[in-house]
Amino acid sequence: MTPGTPRPLGSQPQSGAPGTSSTPDGQDPSKPRKRGVARRHLIFGSAAAGLGALAGAATLLPGRAEEGGGTPSDTAAGQEGRPHGTGTVPFFGPRQAGIDTDAQAHGNFVALTLRPDLPRARVKALLRLLTDDAARLTQGRGALADTEAELAASPARLTVTFGFGPGLVELVNPGQRPSWLKPLQAFGIDRLRPEFSGGDLLLQICSDDPLTVAHAQRMLLKDARSFATVKWVQQGFRRAHGTERPGTTMRNLFGQVDGTANPVPSSGWHEEVVWGAGSHPAWMENGTSLVIRRIAMNLDTWDELDRSGRDASVGRRMDNGAPLTGTDEFDEPDFEALNPVGFPVIEDFSHMRRARPEDPAQRIFRRAYNYDGAPAAGEISGSGLIFASFQADVERQFTPIQQRLDELDMLNQWTVPIGSAVFAIPPGCEEGGFIGEHLFT
Amino acid sequence: MTPGTPRPLGSQPQSGAPGTSSTPDGQDPSKPRKRGVARRHLIFGSAAAGLGALAGAATLLPGRAEEGGGTPSDTAAGQEGRPHGTGTVPFFGPRQAGIDTDAQAHGNFVALTLRPDLPRARVKALLRLLTDDAARLTQGRGALADTEAELAASPARLTVTFGFGPGLVELVNPGQRPSWLKPLQAFGIDRLRPEFSGGDLLLQICSDDPLTVAHAQRMLLKDARSFATVKWVQQGFRRAHGTERPGTTMRNLFGQVDGTANPVPSSGWHEEVVWGAGSHPAWMENGTSLVIRRIAMNLDTWDELDRSGRDASVGRRMDNGAPLTGTDEFDEPDFEALNPVGFPVIEDFSHMRRARPEDPAQRIFRRAYNYDGAPAAGEISGSGLIFASFQADVERQFTPIQQRLDELDMLNQWTVPIGSAVFAIPPGCEEGGFIGEHLFT
Repeated sequence: MTPGTPRPLGSQPQSGAPGTSSTPDGQDPSKPRKRGVARRHLIFGSAAAGLGALAGAATLLPGRAEEGGGTPSDTAAGQEGRPHGTGTVPFFGPRQAGIDTDAQAHGNFVALTLRPDLPRARVKALLRLLTDDAARLTQGRGALADTEAELAASPARLTVTFGFGPGLVELVNPGQRPSWLKPLQAFGIDRLRPEFSGGDLLLQICSDDPLTVAHAQRMLLKDARSFATVKWVQQGFRRAHGTERPGTTMRNLFGQVDGTANPVPSSGWHEEVVWGAGSHPAWMENGTSLVIRRIAMNLDTWDELDRSGRDASVGRRMDNGAPLTGTDEFDEPDFEALNPVGFPVIEDFSHMRRARPEDPAQRIFRRAYNYDGAPAAGEISGSGLIFASFQADVERQFTPIQQRLDELDMLNQWTVPIGSAVFAIPPGCEEGGFIGEHLFT
Repeated sequence: MTPGTPRPLGSQPQSGAPGTSSTPDGQDPSKPRKRGVARRHLIFGSAAAGLGALAGAATLLPGRAEEGGGTPSDTAAGQEGRPHGTGTVPFFGPRQAGIDTDAQAHGNFVALTLRPDLPRARVKALLRLLTDDAARLTQGRGALADTEAELAASPARLTVTFGFGPGLVELVNPGQRPSWLKPLQAFGIDRLRPEFSGGDLLLQICSDDPLTVAHAQRMLLKDARSFATVKWVQQGFRRAHGTERPGTTMRNLFGQVDGTANPVPSSGWHEEVVWGAGSHPAWMENGTSLVIRRIAMNLDTWDELDRSGRDASVGRRMDNGAPLTGTDEFDEPDFEALNPVGFPVIEDFSHMRRARPEDPAQRIFRRAYNYDGAPAAGEISGSGLIFASFQADVERQFTPIQQRLDELDMLNQWTVPIGSAVFAIPPGCEEGGFIGEHLFT
């Protein structure tokens, strides 16, 4: 394979470039694959949510291993001297990129508010413009009016993913709002701030290079400015490309292994979780939903907790992510196991147990990023997680998990949701089209 | 060579690990090398400062090329499947790391204010503690009280560099303050904000991995909190490791090639510029100075400028960084050249011409980072440059350049210094010692 270009996913080369779910082999992208892999998976499914599945179940893992799964798409960095920055993810296709794409090192989430009384036709013009920008930038070309086009030359797997808030959909086509496209219900643990919540139009800008993200964001906002104002920007990061072996599960700033059982694209679950049947109007076919929650993590009080307390709060070992009833990250947890004095080894209030769905339909696909802002006065950190989850239907998949965690989750002692937003993710488009075009029909 | 470990600099393997200036070959680190390389270099030396030598001269380049110069120390990322994150830069040595070390992708600058009435002995305890933390973390080990030691396992060339502000030196040893260790004079272009200026103790934390930087910062601040409070944090980035070919000159968010003629460690100039004779008291032998200036860049008004205006403002072409009198980034500029109507090709007010020192002693070594914060209300960007320059003597080397740029520099129309700080960079230490130990004698 050519270094610097994305590699097809592990054992599923037929699924095409990982950045999109285009199906060059003619597969029906709406049809779940490997549905019959294991009934066990249905029962002890991988779900996990809340703080980005700090816990997550492990049951997918045997299957995952069988499938060679979860392999990041591009391990060619630096090989044969070819810079990694030349890697691209296709923009055009039936589905948007940046969802099934293996998470890049940097992710900026930008929410815009449409200017008051913006005519419908202007919204269309905006989406056409931004689609064109994104199509160019992701392929390493400057945007049309790009005065710093040189900065676009190293896309480093840049993706730009568009999301529509309730306001945009209501403005363009009021009858076409999916029932779940509205602010989440108020949760008792929430301390939401308007500066991290809501928004009419979301741009999720991800790349393995931070300068590429900054330039792409700049170009998009420059073209958007006569149509919309910036509501919020959240900047996130994961491990840099190449820091760790491909396939290593991310850690968050609590040090927790985060995402062990996430239904990644190479798993049999992913298709149904993200792209399955939801309460979708027709314009959203091959679309999905995105929930973004900004979760402040109190590292200072977390510090007061010793190792065993930390392990217990999640139900997993900090060192290797193994469930407390196992020895390996990918071991399946045993919720029935008792310790010598008769208490559950994995405590009832642990995040992993609470996040786990009783109903296999309650599964989400997380694509979270860490954030680490400058500390507020008198503090020494301003850290947390930009929780981001994709699911076909927010109310069916996400909300029940969050309700359980809101009621009871040991991790709530150290985490506070301070931002929340829900977006409809429209399908992708072909060259000449634009993202969201079917909403205008 | 072992992948993942730093490689000695290009043609100067005798200079030891690039992260430190230890001289295993017994070379005298205070003695400039290749002093006789070219008189021409003395006359048209590389200097350039202000906005991080957006311009910089090119005369070093022939010499640089001869010396195989400027090669980043670690190009082994991903090769043979070894993760890049295992790369380390030695901590102990006569000089601190993070100066001659090829700039890592991420750099956080953290300034602390010592708590009121902190006894001298407590300052020593703080420095001992932080030295130990840094020595461990940079080698991929958790800090002593590290409750998330797993996050330390991928240092990705982590360096922690300590700087002392005037307050710390005055407290510990009042007679030992270098004459230049004080706030810079007020410049007419400055709009300094206290939240980005001054500080008693600086921690410069750099790594190719953003999670590593976040964790190291967290550990250091945790151990510092009973001694000091956070004054400011500035988070910067350059291209990710592996995005571009090694040796590619950085671009800033204006899109400008930034640092063409910087006296990098492989150049003959570097030793004298950074480590040469300054107005140093004895405790600072093998030390240097660091000036940090936060430069806001107004991308919106910069946008109004066309290509030729941009080129003229600096004196270089945006596309490849070549001086306007040349065709290649490393061509030497011809300040005498006139255009057909008799005006200088490189304008008198251009940044490159203004930044260039008339006196070869006025040279600095820049190690800048871009920043891109969330935009303020009503704006679409909050971008700029964390200008950082090392030089043996601030007043002799840095100040005259800044004075010229303050008087006249076309770039001043689009840039505003909003933060400023000066630090003494003490020498390194050996195992068992601590950074700054000679200040206590």
